[in-house]
Amino acid sequence: MNRIVTFKEPSLKRDDLLSVLDALANRKIFPKEIYEKAIENLKNILDSNNIILVSSKYVAIQLILQNIEKRYSNLYSSNDINYFYFNQFSGFFNNITPLDINQYSINFDPQQLDELNKSILFFCYNLGYPVDLQFISEIDIISIADLSGSLFSKFNGKHLMNYVDFAICSLKDEEIITSGDGALIYIKDRKIYEKINEFCLNNNLYLSDFNCSLLLSQLSKKDKIIESRKKIFLKIFEETKKYLNDSNWFDSRKILEKCALEELAENSSFTTFTVDANDINIANTIAQQIGIEIEPAIKIPLSLKLNLTKSYPITEKVTKHAIFIPFYPMLTENEINKISYFINKLSSY
Amino acid sequence: MNRIVTFKEPSLKRDDLLSVLDALANRKIFPKEIYEKAIENLKNILDSNNIILVSSKYVAIQLILQNIEKRYSNLYSSNDINYFYFNQFSGFFNNITPLDINQYSINFDPQQLDELNKSILFFCYNLGYPVDLQFISEIDIISIADLSGSLFSKFNGKHLMNYVDFAICSLKDEEIITSGDGALIYIKDRKIYEKINEFCLNNNLYLSDFNCSLLLSQLSKKDKIIESRKKIFLKIFEETKKYLNDSNWFDSRKILEKCALEELAENSSFTTFTVDANDINIANTIAQQIGIEIEPAIKIPLSLKLNLTKSYPITEKVTKHAIFIPFYPMLTENEINKISYFINKLSSY
Repeated sequence: MNRIVTFKEPSLKRDDLLSVLDALANRKIFPKEIYEKAIENLKNILDSNNIILVSSKYVAIQLILQNIEKRYSNLYSSNDINYFYFNQFSGFFNNITPLDINQYSINFDPQQLDELNKSILFFCYNLGYPVDLQFISEIDIISIADLSGSLFSKFNGKHLMNYVDFAICSLKDEEIITSGDGALIYIKDRKIYEKINEFCLNNNLYLSDFNCSLLLSQLSKKDKIIESRKKIFLKIFEETKKYLNDSNWFDSRKILEKCALEELAENSSFTTFTVDANDINIANTIAQQIGIEIEPAIKIPLSLKLNLTKSYPITEKVTKHAIFIPFYPMLTENEINKISYFINKLSSY
Repeated sequence: MNRIVTFKEPSLKRDDLLSVLDALANRKIFPKEIYEKAIENLKNILDSNNIILVSSKYVAIQLILQNIEKRYSNLYSSNDINYFYFNQFSGFFNNITPLDINQYSINFDPQQLDELNKSILFFCYNLGYPVDLQFISEIDIISIADLSGSLFSKFNGKHLMNYVDFAICSLKDEEIITSGDGALIYIKDRKIYEKINEFCLNNNLYLSDFNCSLLLSQLSKKDKIIESRKKIFLKIFEETKKYLNDSNWFDSRKILEKCALEELAENSSFTTFTVDANDINIANTIAQQIGIEIEPAIKIPLSLKLNLTKSYPITEKVTKHAIFIPFYPMLTENEINKISYFINKLSSY
């Protein structure tokens, strides 16, 4: 019998538990010895000293929001943020204005933004590929980004978090690497970093040793995980590239046109795989027939949640046509074939 | 060489990891199969359906505060709350009024309270012994309690959480049982429970499977843990009872005068051990000489943090005289003897 190809797969594996056992069995100081190890490890990988590990993404965003000055009452947001962030922000900002940007198209004209000294810019980029965020670091506005799926992604040799003022990376079980639950916070400003870090210390908000020991195990496998992802990416690419054309601009395979493979391999973690579907309903029917789970890349644009009448054509196009396929290291050859077959079938509609 | 007797010991043990491995290896559905198991298990133990597991105490208190109506702008608080709660509350309530109550003396005259329909009552009870909270459930005020150390404690055959509107129990590594990090929320009102539960589901705030699998392992050992604690409690009691007198009313050993041993064993988890010290500075010196770590039961009363001039005699007495001794299942016979020797030495000053 053919098992269905599930959309997601937990990052936590059996062999992680042995590493957790080792880390905890050797723990001499209580608590936080393993926290320190995890932070040191991440500092080396990410090339930044200003990072903190906390117990969840909820804690991470609250800590950031509570530590920006009161005068920031406007939020400019990408139009593809999810329910979670929408909830957090609607309790915090007086005005929320979506921009017509999303994970597939972050560029915009800064002239659209008013009152920069009262405003925050927020966006998510979880796809895991290199993306030009240089222009954002040049706009005189405080920027916050969710970079969960892009924790290890770079642009111009620098990790993406370097281009924003605050970054959050979730480390939940569905992310590319996991600490069970937990999140990483990056804070560009050293003084704000020190303030939040001290608050976490005094309020016992650091990620627990138990979760940090899992993170250490996962970090040690990071390169192997990314290498497997790259191989699967290339395999699907080879088997499906024939129907790819210029109208599929948000399709993950298009990235190979902009970026040489070696450069891509150094700068991305191949977190996601997006394909273009003419009609998402038909795509769902085909996926069900073949036995794979798919998800829309954007569920509901923020502008729709806010009932805005203004049109957001770029986000609307992605919402209507972009879907995520199952994409993780444990996919079998048979499953990869099913996925490729699905993509080719999609292109014929 | 004699090792120092540390004040705390992690609850997480090596054998837990094997249980974690089993729980995760059998996981078929992703995610949240193990979350459901942990909740079912806790529902049976705690005899309540209205419980949620989240990733940290921070998330727990924020969820409660965000789900009480806006009109509640006053907080009446026990005078022994820590830095963590003080920080959460000072961002939330317009007025914070300490009452002269603390973990060792929760009774007060409800006539002191004004504007009950605008007010919340908050207190912590982490000692782990039975305590009369019936009178609190009879006051017409919304009550929130941190019952971390008293998760399994009862009064009149009912778990303590039944006597309040909202309870929070931390499940960090230093608690009697642990999920690594995490917290349990109890919500008396079914409608508010459903609202918060749905919010947690939609915002991915449930405790992770990784952490829940540790919790399941710890829950299966709960009775054994409490039994070990009881034995150590009785041993220290027997070896030190001779100097106990009526002025030591907050001393843990006094509980055996109010409560028969069988009743106590059924209703408490023997979480902490408090003894009376004439002078905390002298107690620290003796402890250092003997090689044990101790902690004051109350670090700084809330009234002192708020610079209030009114006197709070009961809390001040506890702050001046009550200390926690090291008290956990892995204490060796030699360490227990050191602790008993310390307590007897204290009594001679």
